[in-house]
Amino acid sequence: MKLLVTGGAGFLGARLAREILKKGELNGQKVTALHIADLFPAPADLLADARVKGHTGPMLEQGPLFESGFDGVFHLASAVSGECEQDFDLGMRSNLDSTRCLLEGLRKAGNVPRMVFASSVAVFGPDASNPMPDIVADNTLPSPQTSYGTHKLMIEYLLADFTRKGFIDGRAARLMTVTVRPGKPNGAASSFFSGIIREPLAGVESICPVDENVSHSVSSPNNTIKGLITVFEASREAMQGRLALNLPGLNVTVKEMLKALEEVAGPEVRKHVKFVRNEQIAGIVANWAKGGSAQRAAGLGLHPDASFKEIVKQYIEDCKLPYYPAHALDGLKK
Amino acid sequence: MKLLVTGGAGFLGARLAREILKKGELNGQKVTALHIADLFPAPADLLADARVKGHTGPMLEQGPLFESGFDGVFHLASAVSGECEQDFDLGMRSNLDSTRCLLEGLRKAGNVPRMVFASSVAVFGPDASNPMPDIVADNTLPSPQTSYGTHKLMIEYLLADFTRKGFIDGRAARLMTVTVRPGKPNGAASSFFSGIIREPLAGVESICPVDENVSHSVSSPNNTIKGLITVFEASREAMQGRLALNLPGLNVTVKEMLKALEEVAGPEVRKHVKFVRNEQIAGIVANWAKGGSAQRAAGLGLHPDASFKEIVKQYIEDCKLPYYPAHALDGLKK
Repeated sequence: MKLLVTGGAGFLGARLAREILKKGELNGQKVTALHIADLFPAPADLLADARVKGHTGPMLEQGPLFESGFDGVFHLASAVSGECEQDFDLGMRSNLDSTRCLLEGLRKAGNVPRMVFASSVAVFGPDASNPMPDIVADNTLPSPQTSYGTHKLMIEYLLADFTRKGFIDGRAARLMTVTVRPGKPNGAASSFFSGIIREPLAGVESICPVDENVSHSVSSPNNTIKGLITVFEASREAMQGRLALNLPGLNVTVKEMLKALEEVAGPEVRKHVKFVRNEQIAGIVANWAKGGSAQRAAGLGLHPDASFKEIVKQYIEDCKLPYYPAHALDGLKK
Repeated sequence: MKLLVTGGAGFLGARLAREILKKGELNGQKVTALHIADLFPAPADLLADARVKGHTGPMLEQGPLFESGFDGVFHLASAVSGECEQDFDLGMRSNLDSTRCLLEGLRKAGNVPRMVFASSVAVFGPDASNPMPDIVADNTLPSPQTSYGTHKLMIEYLLADFTRKGFIDGRAARLMTVTVRPGKPNGAASSFFSGIIREPLAGVESICPVDENVSHSVSSPNNTIKGLITVFEASREAMQGRLALNLPGLNVTVKEMLKALEEVAGPEVRKHVKFVRNEQIAGIVANWAKGGSAQRAAGLGLHPDASFKEIVKQYIEDCKLPYYPAHALDGLKK
C-alpha cells in the first residue's frame, strides 16, 4: 500500500513514519511506499529507506501529489497554536486551506483512501453558557478558544462530510498533550509539561510556571503513535458513527509528574525544577481541561499510559536513539 | 447606519429588509443605507426605497462591496440543503467560500461590524455514538448529516473565531423550519411543512408524505425575522459567551398543524390534505430532531409562536400583501 504522512518531518510525524516502516504493514497490507510531505526535509534515516519519498514544500503546492492515488493518509501537518494566534492568515492557509487541498486531491484520485487526521484536545475550551467539564469526553461540546482549535474542529466536520459523501474514509483522532517531547523549550504554553522532565534529565534548570496542583491529560509519544495507527486500522463500524474521538491521556498533576521524575531519576534531578509562577501561562492553562476521557478509543483497545513513571522511562530510553541530543541525559550522570 | 443583507432577494431576506426599513433603526441607530446582495435582483418594492441599493451576482465577486464599511450585516445567502447534496462543489463555494469572502471583506474594512449569520437546526443529526435528544437544545452536540449542515456549523465556529480575534462582532442564529412559506412546493424534504397549509388554503390538493404523528419545530416568518433582529441588537454580554444559539420553534405534530388549519379555515380546506407515505421523505424526516428548545434565545426575550393557529392566521394575513399570489386564498372562498 502507498501511504502519505503529512508533517512527516516533525517529531511525531517522523516517529509515526518510523513505526510504520518497522511494522511493514497496516491492516495486513504491505507498505510499499511511504511519502512524506512537509515544509522541511524529512530526517535522513527516513529518506534512507527505499520505500520513503520526501516532498518538501507547502501543502498548497502539493496538489498533484495528493491526487496520485494513496491508499492511506496520516495528516499531521499543521501550524501550531502560537503561530496561528500570531498570524491569522498563516493559520487559515496552513491548516484550513492546506487540508482542503489535501481532501480535494484525495477526492480527485477517486479511490476512497483511508485517512487519519490529527485533531487536538484544543477543540475544547471554557464556555460561559455551557461550562466545560473537568474531564473532557468524546461527546463534550467543543468550544475552541484559539484559531488552531477552531481549524481542527472545522476540519473534523469537513472530513466527516467528505467521508459521508464517499470521497474518503476519514477519521479524526484528538491528540492529548504529548510528553516528553525532545528539543528546546518552545513558545507553546504547554511547553513546560515536557520541559520539567526533559531539562532536569539533561542536568539543566527548568522553570515550572504553574502551581503543582495543575492537572492535565498527557500521552507518551509511543502511546500517541499507537493511537494514530489503531484509529487508522479500525473499521468504519468500530468508529461508531461519529468520526472524531479523543485519544487516551493520563490525567496527572504537576506534583505527580515530578514525583515520578524523582522516583525514576533521583532527587538531584528533581531539584532542577523551580517554581516561578508566570501569570500569563498560568492563565492560559487555567482555561484548559483538567483531564480527558477516551471511551470510544478504549473500545478500540486504546488506553492511557500506565503511569507517568513509564512515560519518564520511555523518554530516557528514547534518548539513546541516534536522533536525540548527546547531552539529553547528562543530569543522570552526575 | 449602513447595513448589508445577503440573500436579501429571497423570501426571508426580503422580508427582513422590509422589516428593517419599516423600523427605520436598529439599536437606536438610524438606518441610512441598506445594501442587498443576492444572486437574483431584489424585489421592486425594496429597490424603490431610496435607502436600498441592490447588488446582483455571486458573493465571491462582491469582495469590494464587503470591504466598504458596513455597520451591520445579516448573512442569509446560502445554497440550500438539496442543492449542496446534488452539487458538492457548489455547496462549498456558495456557503463556505462565499462566507469567507464576506468575513475577510468585513475584517479588511476594520470597523468591527456586527454580523448575524443565519445558521440552521440542520447542524444537528442522529449520532450512533451519542444519541440525539428528541428536543435539540443550544448545547446539544452537533452532528450534521448534510453538507449544508456541515457548512453552517463550520461557519458558526469560524465566525466565533473572527469575533474572538476582534475582526467582527458576530453571532449565529440557528433557524428552525420556517412555515408557512409562500410559493410552489420545492424539492426540500421539509417542503410539506408549508405545503400542507399553503396548498389547501389555495384550494389545491396537498400530499403529506409522513404520518400525522411526526413532530417538528417550526417558526413563523414574522417570529423568525424578530429572532434575527433581536440577536443582532443583543449585546455581546447577553450572548453569554457562546455565539451560536437556537432560535425558538413551536414543537408541533402534523396532526396538530392540520387541526389548527381546520379550526382557522374550516373542514373543507383541511380535506385537501391527503396522506400518501413517501418512504424517502419519511426516512429523511425520521432522522430530524422531533423538536427544539431555545433557552438562550428566551434570555433575549424570544419565544416560539403562541400556537400553530396563529401561524396559519399570519399566513392568511400575509396573502393580502401585494407580492403574494392572487389565488393564494382561493380555498377559503369556496
